[in-house]
Amino acid sequence: MSDDSNRLTQEGISLPDEYLNHTIITMTGHESVRRFESTPVPEPMLKAILTSARSAPTSSNLQAFSIIVIDDPATKARLAKLAGDQGLIVDAPCFFVFCADIHRLQYLAERQGREFGAHTLEMFLLATVDATLAMQNTLVAAESYGLATTPIGSVRDYPNAIAEELDLPHGVYAVAGLCIGYEKSDERRGTKPRLPEHVTVHRNRYSTETREQGIRDYDTTMIDRGTYRGRQVTVPGETAMSERDYAWAEHTSLRCSDPDVIGGHPLLGRRDLRRELDERGFSFD
Amino acid sequence: MSDDSNRLTQEGISLPDEYLNHTIITMTGHESVRRFESTPVPEPMLKAILTSARSAPTSSNLQAFSIIVIDDPATKARLAKLAGDQGLIVDAPCFFVFCADIHRLQYLAERQGREFGAHTLEMFLLATVDATLAMQNTLVAAESYGLATTPIGSVRDYPNAIAEELDLPHGVYAVAGLCIGYEKSDERRGTKPRLPEHVTVHRNRYSTETREQGIRDYDTTMIDRGTYRGRQVTVPGETAMSERDYAWAEHTSLRCSDPDVIGGHPLLGRRDLRRELDERGFSFD
Repeated sequence: MSDDSNRLTQEGISLPDEYLNHTIITMTGHESVRRFESTPVPEPMLKAILTSARSAPTSSNLQAFSIIVIDDPATKARLAKLAGDQGLIVDAPCFFVFCADIHRLQYLAERQGREFGAHTLEMFLLATVDATLAMQNTLVAAESYGLATTPIGSVRDYPNAIAEELDLPHGVYAVAGLCIGYEKSDERRGTKPRLPEHVTVHRNRYSTETREQGIRDYDTTMIDRGTYRGRQVTVPGETAMSERDYAWAEHTSLRCSDPDVIGGHPLLGRRDLRRELDERGFSFD
Repeated sequence: MSDDSNRLTQEGISLPDEYLNHTIITMTGHESVRRFESTPVPEPMLKAILTSARSAPTSSNLQAFSIIVIDDPATKARLAKLAGDQGLIVDAPCFFVFCADIHRLQYLAERQGREFGAHTLEMFLLATVDATLAMQNTLVAAESYGLATTPIGSVRDYPNAIAEELDLPHGVYAVAGLCIGYEKSDERRGTKPRLPEHVTVHRNRYSTETREQGIRDYDTTMIDRGTYRGRQVTVPGETAMSERDYAWAEHTSLRCSDPDVIGGHPLLGRRDLRRELDERGFSFD
């Protein structure tokens, strides 16, 4: 039985003590938690978390992001409905929504008497990256206090409805959400294993040499851990893979299949995203 | 004179000692550094940094990212040329390139005998976010050891040329780079101030109520600090703003202007990005 309390012990990586600082231990111990206590996040923690979020790098200091901190129960309940009916958004005392924000830059252009000339894919990308960097600092800061977090990608299910709920102006869209709070005491399941380092990390150039072996090893790990037990995705009219063999490779390939084939799986059912983000004021040219 | 060693002291935020942990101090102390010593990054640090990177959250556990760790001097030199001729990529002992990677997912689909059905904007976005989350953990892990970092967005200047240099297959593009190493001893200038919290952080719904005041205050801070001294962007045929008034608002509005107007400023000169990313195998529909 591996020690899943963090990824270093899970993978049997033994580092000299001087390399095991609080930050590394926090990050390698990350896991998503599904159930929260209602206990609020203390104000000084919130302040430090937000200051950490704002300290993330931002491309050319454009600061093309906004963070919406939501603790109003009614707002959380409506957002939960819009984001895949996820009750944990209601339960978590704090729900952060990280937005790509080019509205502020458009305001600046107007304020300075110029024409905003950045309706481009690059600007969409830059703002999305800025929001994501701020989100990761938020997650790490929260977990440094022993708080639990859960990233919520499904705020992208209905971008316009989310925008309406949060008064997001034209030029702002929700990239991702993050639940923050104290988890229920029985909630830690241990760090979820990742693909072996040699599959996702490459030296000097991209290589697929050990990929197949890495995927096999990973599937074995996930089967041993029972990660997909009871979570098998099935295709109507197709014989399902035996539960013994079903793991990351099959699960992931199904999640990346045509949603019409597997019955509109939400992950890839975001077919309207392009149209909705066009309407939110982003360009992809 | 404010204490710019981290954002908490810079903004006069005083937290009870128990909230000042190593992780918060690391993140609020982030600054980009421009000059590096050639001293290599010790192997145990690199291991911990990579393990932290791989511990970032990933949407639906798709792990749609790859990290290329580059220490080969010749490769770094060629990448530096392609990424805005930035010498710091040559100087830094380690250059990480964070890639959105749907190539691995396409391989999985094929391996499992399915058709990859995720040529969508959502998949482009998901993979970009995955790569960005891994990048931010890398940055924080490196800085937790006192290493310096510099994010490099200009790997997006020539996506296909970068891909060729790094053997990136179809379905992989470089979102951002990160220089890592020990900075030259005279290189710390202090944390760069950010917009006030009330401008970028909103409670329960988006608000622009205090934005204008926040931008004015920020401009004052940046003028006092001399951040834009000697860095003024000028528009041919237009009288430049007096150096005394030139700060974030004007600088940023210029950077977001039509690049043809201000002479092809690189930030927004990435006019070919869409075409190049189409060629790299990403979809925006």
